[in-house]
Formats: sequence, C-alpha cells, structure tokens
Amino acid sequence: MLTFGTPRRSLQSMQVTLTAVGPDHSGLADPIIHYVTGQGANIAEIQMYDHDEACLFAMLCRVEMEPERFAALKPAMEQIGRLKGLSIRVWARDAREGKPRLAICTTYRPEPALALLRAIRDERMPAEAAVMIGNRPTCRSMAEQFGVDWHNVGDAAGKADDERLVAICDEYDVDYIILARYMRILSPGAVWKYAGGRIVNLHHGLLPSFPGMRPYHDAHSFRMLTYGATIHFIVPELDAGNQIIHQSTFTVVPGTPLEQIKRQGESDHEPSCLVEGVRRVVDREVALHFHRVVRRGAKT
Amino acid sequence: MLTFGTPRRSLQSMQVTLTAVGPDHSGLADPIIHYVTGQGANIAEIQMYDHDEACLFAMLCRVEMEPERFAALKPAMEQIGRLKGLSIRVWARDAREGKPRLAICTTYRPEPALALLRAIRDERMPAEAAVMIGNRPTCRSMAEQFGVDWHNVGDAAGKADDERLVAICDEYDVDYIILARYMRILSPGAVWKYAGGRIVNLHHGLLPSFPGMRPYHDAHSFRMLTYGATIHFIVPELDAGNQIIHQSTFTVVPGTPLEQIKRQGESDHEPSCLVEGVRRVVDREVALHFHRVVRRGAKT
Amino acid sequence: MLTFGTPRRSLQSMQVTLTAVGPDHSGLADPIIHYVTGQGANIAEIQMYDHDEACLFAMLCRVEMEPERFAALKPAMEQIGRLKGLSIRVWARDAREGKPRLAICTTYRPEPALALLRAIRDERMPAEAAVMIGNRPTCRSMAEQFGVDWHNVGDAAGKADDERLVAICDEYDVDYIILARYMRILSPGAVWKYAGGRIVNLHHGLLPSFPGMRPYHDAHSFRMLTYGATIHFIVPELDAGNQIIHQSTFTVVPGTPLEQIKRQGESDHEPSCLVEGVRRVVDREVALHFHRVVRRGAKT
Amino acid sequence: MLTFGTPRRSLQSMQVTLTAVGPDHSGLADPIIHYVTGQGANIAEIQMYDHDEACLFAMLCRVEMEPERFAALKPAMEQIGRLKGLSIRVWARDAREGKPRLAICTTYRPEPALALLRAIRDERMPAEAAVMIGNRPTCRSMAEQFGVDWHNVGDAAGKADDERLVAICDEYDVDYIILARYMRILSPGAVWKYAGGRIVNLHHGLLPSFPGMRPYHDAHSFRMLTYGATIHFIVPELDAGNQIIHQSTFTVVPGTPLEQIKRQGESDHEPSCLVEGVRRVVDREVALHFHRVVRRGAKT
Repeated sequence: MLTFGTPRRSLQSMQVTLTAVGPDHSGLADPIIHYVTGQGANIAEIQMYDHDEACLFAMLCRVEMEPERFAALKPAMEQIGRLKGLSIRVWARDAREGKPRLAICTTYRPEPALALLRAIRDERMPAEAAVMIGNRPTCRSMAEQFGVDWHNVGDAAGKADDERLVAICDEYDVDYIILARYMRILSPGAVWKYAGGRIVNLHHGLLPSFPGMRPYHDAHSFRMLTYGATIHFIVPELDAGNQIIHQSTFTVVPGTPLEQIKRQGESDHEPSCLVEGVRRVVDREVALHFHRVVRRGAKT
Repeated sequence: MLTFGTPRRSLQSMQVTLTAVGPDHSGLADPIIHYVTGQGANIAEIQMYDHDEACLFAMLCRVEMEPERFAALKPAMEQIGRLKGLSIRVWARDAREGKPRLAICTTYRPEPALALLRAIRDERMPAEAAVMIGNRPTCRSMAEQFGVDWHNVGDAAGKADDERLVAICDEYDVDYIILARYMRILSPGAVWKYAGGRIVNLHHGLLPSFPGMRPYHDAHSFRMLTYGATIHFIVPELDAGNQIIHQSTFTVVPGTPLEQIKRQGESDHEPSCLVEGVRRVVDREVALHFHRVVRRGAKT
Repeated sequence: MLTFGTPRRSLQSMQVTLTAVGPDHSGLADPIIHYVTGQGANIAEIQMYDHDEACLFAMLCRVEMEPERFAALKPAMEQIGRLKGLSIRVWARDAREGKPRLAICTTYRPEPALALLRAIRDERMPAEAAVMIGNRPTCRSMAEQFGVDWHNVGDAAGKADDERLVAICDEYDVDYIILARYMRILSPGAVWKYAGGRIVNLHHGLLPSFPGMRPYHDAHSFRMLTYGATIHFIVPELDAGNQIIHQSTFTVVPGTPLEQIKRQGESDHEPSCLVEGVRRVVDREVALHFHRVVRRGAKT
Repeated sequence: MLTFGTPRRSLQSMQVTLTAVGPDHSGLADPIIHYVTGQGANIAEIQMYDHDEACLFAMLCRVEMEPERFAALKPAMEQIGRLKGLSIRVWARDAREGKPRLAICTTYRPEPALALLRAIRDERMPAEAAVMIGNRPTCRSMAEQFGVDWHNVGDAAGKADDERLVAICDEYDVDYIILARYMRILSPGAVWKYAGGRIVNLHHGLLPSFPGMRPYHDAHSFRMLTYGATIHFIVPELDAGNQIIHQSTFTVVPGTPLEQIKRQGESDHEPSCLVEGVRRVVDREVALHFHRVVRRGAKT
C-alpha cells in the first residue's frame, strides 16, 4: 500500500530552506529527507552536488511544512549533523521576528556598503546591519561610525578565512550575506552553507557579458559606451547562469577616459544599484527558485 | 527517535535511475522519494528542475537498492505515475540481460550511423541496434540493409515528434539513444525522460568552443587548422557544461578549402569518433555522475 | 636628394575620403596614391584589404588637401577607375553644400525610420532624407507619406541587390547610409564603397555582447534585466571591433515577459537611440579614425 | 596626363617589407610612400594604425621592387627616419644570404626552445639560432650549452625591456623572432617594428578558443578531452584574428588529472608543435598576406 504524504501547501505552510555540507555523499541525503517527509513536510526543491575536486558533497532542500513543526526541526537536524558529520543549516525567513539581519562584506571600496548603511539608518531599507566583515581593514572605521560590529577575516595578504566568515554569520544569526564589493570568491563550502538565495553580490559590470575582475576595463577595451552593475544571488555551481536581481547602467560619449567612467561607476552608480537590489531581496519581491530569480507572486 | 535508513551500499546493491516528468511540481518528488527510501534504497543523487517556460517539472533520482527489491519498483512507480499524472521511468543497466539496446537516430548524413551498424555487426561493439529513428527518410534504406526497424518521426519539413520518438524508445526497450548526426534539438521533456546518461550525441565540432549548427564553418571562419568531433551525454539543462565522453581531432595546412575539411570530417573522422564514444558508454567505462562524466572505478 | 611633400595641414586643408574596389590587387594602390601625393595631398590614413574569398581588393585612403585642388580630383579618379577597372569614390563632407543627405534603409520595422523622418521634418535633425531603400515593401507608404523617393532592392524572398543599393546611393548623391533596422548584411564590396564612416547601423542589442539576429531573445535567455540598442559605423572587415557611436539601455524587473521587452525596445527605445546616434554623425561630433570612433576635436 | 608607375612584378621583383613607427601620424606615410613609388616599386600592401592610447603611429608597407634598387633603399629610409623622427626597418627575406637567423625568446619553460635548438643542430631546421633572449635567467645555461649568445631583458620581477629586445634583434640582424613560451606580451611598438610575419609565437592552447595565460587549466575547467598548441604570427592589432601557422592536439580520457595533461603537453607536445610551425616559416611554406596566413604558391 502506497502513501503519498500530506496534502501540499496548507494556508499556514512555512517555507524552510535546509542546507547540508559534508565530506562525501554517502548517507547525506537519506536521513534529512527521511526526517522532513516523515514530519509531513512537502519537498519543493532538492539539489545535490558532488564537488569532486573539493571533496565536498552538498544538498539544498526547500520544504513546506506546518509552522508548529518548525521548532522541532532545528534540534533534529543538529542531531543528524552530529551523528553523520554534516554541517546542516535550517533557515525560514517566515520565522524571523523583526527585520532581516544582514552581514555586509567589503574589501577596499567603501561606497556601496556606505550607501547600504545609510539606507538602513534612514529607514529606507527595512533591514538590520547585524555585522560587517572584511578581508581588508579598510572599512573598519565606517563600521565603527555606524555602530556595527566589525570582523576582519583576511590575513596579511587579504586571503579570507571562509570558515570564519561563515562562523561569524552563524553567530550573528544573519539572514542574508551582502557582498558589497567584496573582492574574494567564496569557497563552494561557504556558498552551499548559505545557499537558497541568501548571498547577494554586487558585480561592478553587466552580467553575463563582463564577468571578470575588471569589468570597467574590459567593456572599455571594446570601446563600449554602456557601463553597468549587476546585483545577483550567488549560487553554488560554477557554471550556473546568472541569477540577476537588479541591473542598471549609465552611458558615456565616445572617447570618455576609463578613469572618469570608473569614478562615475564607483561613486554614484554602484551604490544606488546595490541599495535597490538588496531592497528587492529584503522586501521579498524576488526569490530564488530552481536556480532562477522569480518575482514573488508571479509563480503562484 | 530518529532513524536514518539502512546501511549504504551492500555488496549486491544495484544502481537504479528514476526519472519523473510532470506538468507542475506539486507532489512530484514526495511519493517517489518516500517509496524508494521506504524500500531501503539509498539516494545517490537527486536533481529537480522547474522549466517554467515549458511548464515542465522534472526529477532525476539515482538510488542504490538491493536487487531483489527491483522487481517491485517498476509496478509501484507505474501506480504512482497513474495516480499523480506523472511520466515515470525506471532503468537499471545492471538488470539488462544480454547486450545493451541502442536507438540510432539520424537526419541526413549516413556515415556515423553506418559506422555504428558495422561495428555492431562485426562484434567490435557489444551492443544491439534495437531500432533506427529519423526525422528525414534518408537513412531508411540503410536500416533495411542491416535489418533494423526504421521509424520516421519527422513531418514533411523534418520537424520531429519527440513524444513519438520517446514512445518508440520505450516500446523497443532501449538502454541508450544515440544521436548520430540527428540534427534536431530534443525537447526538455524528452531529455528528462531519458536523463541519467542514456542519450549520447555526436557533435561535429569541438565542444565547448564550437557549439553551433555549423562548427566546420565557424572554426574555418577563424582560420583554425584544427577540426574535431565530440561525443557527449545530453543533459537536460540548457546551461549545463559539456559532458564529454570522447573527442578527437584532425589538422589541416593553412589554406585548405572548407569543402575538403568537411569531407574529411564527415566521411572519416566523425564516424570513428562516434564508434569510440559509444563503445565507452556500452562498455561502461564512463558514467554520468552529478552532471559530470566520470571514469568508472575512478570514483570508488 | 629626397623630398617629402608639402607641409601638412594648411589652415584651409580639406579632408577627403577615397575608396577603391577592384577584382584583384595588382596596380590598385599605386595610381591613386601617386596622383594624390603628386597633388600635394597628405595621407592621413590608408587601409588595404584583400578579401580572398570574395576576390575583392579594396582600399580606403583619407587625405588632406587644399580645397582648390578638390575639383580636379573627381575626374582624375574617374579616369583612373576606367583605365584600371576600379570602382572609385571620392567624398568630402566639407564640400557638401546644404545639409548632409541620407539614404534610409529598412526591412520590416518602421519605427526607427519613422523617428528619423520626423526628426528631419521637425528640424531637430540637420539632414535631408534623400532616398529610402528597402529589401521588403513594408515601409513604402511611409516614404510616400513623407514625400521621399522609395526603391525596393529586394527580390521576392527579400534578398537584396547590393549593387543596386549602391547605385541608388550614388545616384541620389548621399553622404550617409542609415541602416534603420535593415536586416541584411551588406556585401564587403558595398561596405568598402561607402567606407570611412558613411554607413550607420542600428543594432537592436548591446554590442559587442549580443551581436546576433535575435539580441532581445539572446539577452532574455540569460535572464538579463538590461536591454539596449547600439548605433555604430559599419566597417569592412568582419573581425573588426565595434565602432560604437551611441548606446542606450532600459531595465526591466525579473520575470518580465520577452514580448513586453521587445515591444518596449522596438516602439520606444530603438527609435530614440537611432535619432541621437545619427545626430552625432550629421553634426560631426564623431568621426571614424583608424577603425575607431573619436570625438571630433578630441584628437587635435 | 596621368602616369601610373611601372608595370607590376617583373620576373626579378623582390618582396620588401617596410615598417615605420613614430610618435604621431603627421608626415609618416608620405615620405616613405613617395620614395618607394618614385623608385618604381609597386605597393602590394599598406596598413596604417594609430594606437591613440600608446601615442604610437605605425605603418606596414609591402612593396615589390627590382632587386638592383634594394641596396639604395636602406640608407634612404635611414635618412627619412632621422629627418622625421621615425623608427624605420627594411627587410627582404630574398636578400638574406645563408640561412634565416632566429632570435629565440624564453621565460621559464625550456622544452620548446630546446627542441628548436636541437632541430637546428641536427640540420632538420634550415635556420640559425642567432641569439637567445629571456625575461628570466632560467634558460641561460641552455643557450651556453648550444653556444648561442644570451641576453636577459627582464628586471628582477621579470618585466621585460621591449626596446632592448628590439635593439638586440636589430644588432643580431635576425629575420624572425620566435617566442618559445615567452610569457610576456610584446608592446605594440615592438610588434610593429617586426611586423609583416616576422614574429612567431607558441601558444600552449588551441586558438582562438583558449587565448588566456592558463589554457590547459581553462580547457580542463570545461572538462574538455582535447588539448592543443598553436603556432601563429603575432600581428599588431589587438582585435585581429588569429594568424595560425600550425596547430596540433592530443586527447585524454575522462578524469585525467590536470597535472598529467600539462606534463604531456609541455614536455612532448608543445616542443614538436613549435618545431613544425617554425619550419613552415623558415621554409617559406606560409606567409602573412593582409593579416592572413597563406600558403606560398596558393596565391599566385
């Protein structure tokens, strides 16, 4: 006799995102899936990956469950994690009381983070700056000025300790990690741990056309007249498409020097682009759904 | 009290690939996963996708289970399919008695298919040509000559009926679909139904550099001196990387005319490239593992 | 004893663009260069190409000469052309009395050409619509409405007769050929005959990122939120960079349907982008200088 | 009355390549062209460029002239160069007595240069190793072993002094500069001074698909099974196509580690590819003709 779980999506159902990361793939999926389906949760999405080069096995699981069962989920997952040697995270934006909490990560350029901190202070952005993290000390004084805790995860050469970055985000109970011109690529492990639309990046060029480290330079080398910035979710797979939340551009006349273009982009354009992109996320106008950005409501 | 399923990978465990395709994603994953984990199967891989444009929801699930439970799996999945309106397929290469069965698909060019048919006839290729399918009638007489059933799924303009193609493959109980210069892109639905490393394509250019419909022409327009062919698994997502099973090349001197290059590629090079690529698949030297081609044995 | 020509750039020097196209390269450059340097002209730029596939040899020569010598140049070049079997053109924008004359070329979409015709009628654009040319009859009535001569150079399938297009432009003594959503690629011969910054194209996507025939579709397939148009000079070599005169963009929210994006681009955005781009050319704010667009004045 | 120079291509005509480089474009072309056409030379090709960013104006001029006039050309050009502040070079391969002279440039990897030196020593390559140049001292002892003069043009960080490199090539009267895994990009000025098919580069990947500094890594990241090397002429313009003289490839099975691929490519494959490519150049099987590689004889 077959049974097929409880009916999907009650009025009160709560969206929960589970991520699990471990050193190999044997026995990772089974206990987690078994538990959540046993609790009557419906599976909305599962993605599993085996990063063979990094010896990393990872799973993202979005489920819909009755809110009253959510409280038990976290300790159950902790128990599974301990028994199986897995790093498991449970996140439900619906369960957040108060404003969503941001970790704002920077390297050198202060403008985008500054724009975000001002928008939060002026209550144009319904979020809380829970913590600031840098791989360089440049933005430390800005954090102090706004009364936000600061942590430097970089070594003398700026190399970031991703495990510490994740540990800080865990400790400060953040909902979203905002990469505000943070110039390091997060390790696959870090990205998986906060998978499911929780890592938002500012890229200072138009994606997917100009993905590199020097997008102003690259577009200029083609003598383009259009420059832009892209706010997108980071997703774990290297070859995934671009999960774009917001893009904006500015246009120059032929012959405009690169330095002038960069100045305009960095001081004016990137900061306002980031603020609008983060606003869409914290206002939940957009969500990540099977590696794609969807407008909330547009899918129902 | 938590339970975490049976111990993984008994000595006799059998790899089974399940695919499920349906019109939306509610309730697709739960009954299948629930059933297989309830039977003590271990989940090796799950991939789920929501092709919103095509209104297609699909899942691939690779599990490892005891062989004695395999017989019950197929009728159970059929029952779930009927109840839920899903198109479910169950495939275990281990369960095939005799040689693996191929569907060989063509459009105009006969050479690659001919090379395959000869390799099978001469027992250089341990496989059976179960059926030939075309979207053009060109290769019909070749099928008749080798005593293989022939089906034309194309209309007058060569537009293929993918549902019929899949139905024919189901009817002939094929293990692998070989696209031997079949010049149509399979629909996402068709690809998902035979997902998991069962569709092998001959592309007459080097991937990923020359992905288009005219790879000889494209490489020639760059004045390249290297031309090649690629045998790869077809995977469902458009933006996936290239799942390359085999590549080979030939080199010409500067100034060689395009027509001469095409002739050399089409008559000599592509056929031998396809034969070696298919051989690797039917001999199970390679397998698809989390969207990547791995050498069998290399992962254990 | 060596002599090195007259001193360069008198106050009254006039820029003249010469193009020559012939069936092979023997003896093409010598008589032309010999004549102009013999007349005391200074060579500002020479580009020569041998399109071996098209059996086409071509040269562009920009010279600076005294205006009083210009009158004799045209008949001298005609004589050389007759003797050598070359198609030679002489053009000096400085020698144009009255407004510059445009040939406006279309295929199906009327909006960009319409915007241009209105800007000319309303005297926002200091130019004259000398003639309209189509490879499809769609825009004929628009030409009639604005009292502009119309010529269809396309056959029943829309295939254009490029020699007739060039002959019409010669006959109407046009300064610039404006490709206002003209969906045919000009032959190398036609492009060389009007080389030197006289052919202006509207491409309905951002170059160089989206060069194909379906740029809205291509950008949408990457889930981009930015769409744009590019006004650029056509230059003869296939592999040249993009000679961009003007670009503009518009931005959409995630999930916007492709049809809505195309409508916005085609009806609003492309027409205004073309008008600004053509204005820069007829106002001589930009010029083509060694395959690159420079702002006039910026180079002196 | 117009005159058009002497008849083209006498039986004894000699191909001469002139290059001129100067700080701006006024008066560069005129004296040179005037002189050579005045001597009865026919112009086969002229290319002029204005690298505005580098404030560099350059011209390549291929002419055909009577051999008896060649002796006077060099001093005349030297005089023009002095008067006009231009760096002018005159080269005629036909005028070389004895074997063509090579400058072999290296950085770290010794294998390709070593293969070349052995081919020369064993008389499989009809050329002379005139000088070796490095931007790193790594290959110095190899030069000494083969009795070839060695010059290091790199500073402590490996940054090369391109003017010294050019001066050394001038001093040693080299015909061809061979970049045998020389890992620096030559400046536009250096490239123009030896333009016209005199600089041959070994790129350790298939062009144009893998142009970067890490082509093995890049191809491997796409899970390609084909790896290759490309021997090509360096041409001055950044956006030029690839002037490929020779390419060859090797193929690996899925899962082959990158280190093993690199070892195979570097120790075996690149050296033999370079030897064959250089042989084609010194044997004059190929030539550069309007930015394109043509087989000698194929164009006449």
